[in-house]
Amino acid sequence: MPEGRPLVVPDDGLTTRQRRNRPLVLLHTGDGKGKSTAAFGLAIRGWNQGWSVGVFQFVKSAKWRIGEQTVLERLGRLHEETGEGGPVAWHKMGAGWSWSRKEGTEADHAAAAAEGWAEIKRALAEQRHDLYVLDEFTYPLAWGWVDADDVAATLRERPGRQHVVVTGRRAAPQLVEVADLVTDMHKVKHPMDVGQKGQRGIEW
Amino acid sequence: MPEGRPLVVPDDGLTTRQRRNRPLVLLHTGDGKGKSTAAFGLAIRGWNQGWSVGVFQFVKSAKWRIGEQTVLERLGRLHEETGEGGPVAWHKMGAGWSWSRKEGTEADHAAAAAEGWAEIKRALAEQRHDLYVLDEFTYPLAWGWVDADDVAATLRERPGRQHVVVTGRRAAPQLVEVADLVTDMHKVKHPMDVGQKGQRGIEW
Repeated sequence: MPEGRPLVVPDDGLTTRQRRNRPLVLLHTGDGKGKSTAAFGLAIRGWNQGWSVGVFQFVKSAKWRIGEQTVLERLGRLHEETGEGGPVAWHKMGAGWSWSRKEGTEADHAAAAAEGWAEIKRALAEQRHDLYVLDEFTYPLAWGWVDADDVAATLRERPGRQHVVVTGRRAAPQLVEVADLVTDMHKVKHPMDVGQKGQRGIEW
Repeated sequence: MPEGRPLVVPDDGLTTRQRRNRPLVLLHTGDGKGKSTAAFGLAIRGWNQGWSVGVFQFVKSAKWRIGEQTVLERLGRLHEETGEGGPVAWHKMGAGWSWSRKEGTEADHAAAAAEGWAEIKRALAEQRHDLYVLDEFTYPLAWGWVDADDVAATLRERPGRQHVVVTGRRAAPQLVEVADLVTDMHKVKHPMDVGQKGQRGIEW
């Protein structure tokens, strides 16, 4: 919500409009709920602006399907049918590997994650989308499967006007550094603490 | 994401399924970005489950319209047309008052907020929706326009299976107490700190 005013007006030679329209890197991290949910909320906003939305989901399992995928893909079809909103591309990167590291070998997972990142780099170089959601992308960085310095440099030097949202716990310092906006979703209280498991509609 | 297991299994006489399906009160608070965005992300999930979604937005201005409203109302029409998802009702409560307290008299704002809460109470008593988003509802409580004890008692004793998400800064202690899940969205870094204003698609 644009509820505030900038604390400082920088001496960067840009007009307010130029500064306002600079593309952003957003990072949703922390141990609390809402990191991915807020990122997909932004994707919904972007769709409504007519933006091309690209989701790159570093999934727990290729079988995993969250409600947002169904809805965003439905909105993408609506765009094709009626011209409303923008196009949506949903990719499950490294399908078949699991961040829980319980399936496949670690080498398989690492190779799949590296290939996922290579695809994101190609998309950024081609300016394929206006908004990228790199969901749970912090994990392959934390595990050393994708080089955090390469990610930071690629995001810093990306061409054009491409917004990028990254979600996940344990964000690499390089990601925090390159991000324009960082929110830490902190768990104050969670039903699992008192024995309640996740449920449909709330957790997925 | 159902990534964890409960830390404890409570001795409450409920089966895992009964416990899992208990309706929740969720609270998104803190000074960071993502409180409302994550709440509307949950509304999208709820829609996908076929839930009746009721949004009660304690708006800055009646003229204010966020992308999520356009998209969720569009999804509501899609439900009417095709049966996909669930119905959506979007209410701007106390339209015309502003939480910035710059328009109207304080008495007007207080009366409008009280009427907004009375409508939410009626909806809860009638079990009108499966998911309620009470967006920026913390403010009328913080200003004493709506009684926090009444809100907590009403939420605690609500009938049936109704999930409620409340967003906003400075949540009353009674809200934190009644909530099953509380996430504090903490600002680590924000573009406004370095002179960049909010922009379309990101902030609204």
